[in-house]
Amino acid sequence: MIRIGIYGYGNLARGVELAVNTAGDMKLVAVFTRREPATVEINSVDVPVINAKDVLEWKDKIDVLVICGGSATDLPQQTPELAKHFNVVDSFDTHAKIPEHFENVNREAINSKKVAVISVGWDPGMFSIIRMYSSAVLPCGKDYTFWGKGVSQGHSDAIRRIPGVIDAKQYTIPVSSSLEKVRSGELPDLSTREKHIRECYVVAEKDADLAKIEQTIVTMPNYFADYNTIVHFITEEEMKNEHSGIPHGGFVIRSGKTGINSENQHIIEYSLKLDSNPEFTASVLAAYARAAWRLFEKGESGCMTAFDIPPKYLSQKSDTELRKTML
Amino acid sequence: MIRIGIYGYGNLARGVELAVNTAGDMKLVAVFTRREPATVEINSVDVPVINAKDVLEWKDKIDVLVICGGSATDLPQQTPELAKHFNVVDSFDTHAKIPEHFENVNREAINSKKVAVISVGWDPGMFSIIRMYSSAVLPCGKDYTFWGKGVSQGHSDAIRRIPGVIDAKQYTIPVSSSLEKVRSGELPDLSTREKHIRECYVVAEKDADLAKIEQTIVTMPNYFADYNTIVHFITEEEMKNEHSGIPHGGFVIRSGKTGINSENQHIIEYSLKLDSNPEFTASVLAAYARAAWRLFEKGESGCMTAFDIPPKYLSQKSDTELRKTML
Repeated sequence: MIRIGIYGYGNLARGVELAVNTAGDMKLVAVFTRREPATVEINSVDVPVINAKDVLEWKDKIDVLVICGGSATDLPQQTPELAKHFNVVDSFDTHAKIPEHFENVNREAINSKKVAVISVGWDPGMFSIIRMYSSAVLPCGKDYTFWGKGVSQGHSDAIRRIPGVIDAKQYTIPVSSSLEKVRSGELPDLSTREKHIRECYVVAEKDADLAKIEQTIVTMPNYFADYNTIVHFITEEEMKNEHSGIPHGGFVIRSGKTGINSENQHIIEYSLKLDSNPEFTASVLAAYARAAWRLFEKGESGCMTAFDIPPKYLSQKSDTELRKTML
Repeated sequence: MIRIGIYGYGNLARGVELAVNTAGDMKLVAVFTRREPATVEINSVDVPVINAKDVLEWKDKIDVLVICGGSATDLPQQTPELAKHFNVVDSFDTHAKIPEHFENVNREAINSKKVAVISVGWDPGMFSIIRMYSSAVLPCGKDYTFWGKGVSQGHSDAIRRIPGVIDAKQYTIPVSSSLEKVRSGELPDLSTREKHIRECYVVAEKDADLAKIEQTIVTMPNYFADYNTIVHFITEEEMKNEHSGIPHGGFVIRSGKTGINSENQHIIEYSLKLDSNPEFTASVLAAYARAAWRLFEKGESGCMTAFDIPPKYLSQKSDTELRKTML
């Protein structure tokens, strides 16, 4: 059994806990939190909740530590620090900062001779894998990534900060006519506005100026100004009843050509429809925790991404079984 | 430049030739044929066509040999034999016999310290990779593979052997209501008949008994009896004008659940729409030829499948570039 620790305990961590408890070859041994451990209730029975500052006492009792912090401030600090002592996995998802994060983690993991797998989830993660394989097999072509329909936490938070807003949820929705254009094999250049719509459900204070709130949303730079944005005002009850889920998903499409005169067109399409964004991401993290341990056992070390890891290490099945049943 | 040889020269090989000539890091150095070399015309200028029996004279001039024979009788014999002397790649696609083929090739490749990559293409190949990743990240679920719409060479050949038939083309088509059922997250048990339709275009001799030919097709055991089969009789001209392509494709869908009460459903869908089945398969072979050479240069040896190979080795881009642009 691979002994797993979870560092940080929010939505993502709860998903990792579920995935680890479902897997037959992993065992959750501890959950680490920066909150007062006594106040943190976890789903697993008989698994201790430990103060994060005592994590080093668990050095020899944990095979892989799954770090469930946020990408903005937690992971850039936590992953390199913890890679000094543990095999680690994270879901760092600030695409532009991945090269920097990789270098910081790699330095520590090489030193400690541990394996650190970063940026696994669905994007970065499964989507990256599809982009990479697809562009390698169809080098003459172009790929497109669409997100949604799904909840963007960052955009929802941005609306919540507007005066007069009690609660908000923002759905990112791919523009279906653009999706169709890409699927048809055209290679369109799509602007931000042509790729995604932003649909917002907002609960406002009783006497709030709704027109002003709507205007503030649709003109908000970076978040909404470059998109077609739809705003709906709803009640707190409607929010609770109809918008409590955290669904997400999206599409990766590569359109490419082969042939002496580029006469043959090929379309590769990958899509995810996820009822729970954090639980799916967590399932990917758990599979890569297994991979991290196997790679460590083979004597490997350093920082890795999904690109560096043979697919087979994610599976519980043996190589022989995989060839027999999955190939 | 990776020096590539092509062994056997049919549709698939012509696709490999195109892919290698398009890639910036590979160079085609020879084509081997069992036919009289002078009768074989290839697309590349200045590349020699060599008698297959002289292949060993090229031992030190070729980095990877891409074997383009058929799975029925060629590859089971050719791949192990050539792996004694070359790094090799093949597209062996008889799923049930992959374990046996793997063992035969592995024995020779371990001995010769060469790398042999078998069974790469789209199924086995890209579809296998998707099945594997998807089942590893969503262990509680089920996967479905649908083929088509596309031409089945074996089924077309079977029709051509019926007396009175001049030419025939068979399209395998997924049953769309079953596809929809799977996409919706139901986990149906689908019979052979419920998964695919077989549509046949047949050119018959002038005085042939069409009713009898149709009856022979739709009742043919293994090939058609278990399917809903549609037969169209067409002219030779219609065959030439409307059915000369070799399109194919298909879908891999995994439907899985997470959540404390399995309350969250996730659907992963991968699809291919290929204008040319052999050219796409060839593009995958070319990418794995690159991978084979890199693995060999790293000192690895033995037989491998797509499951054993880190995605990054398929790409021309450096690790740093991949992390920056694809992750």
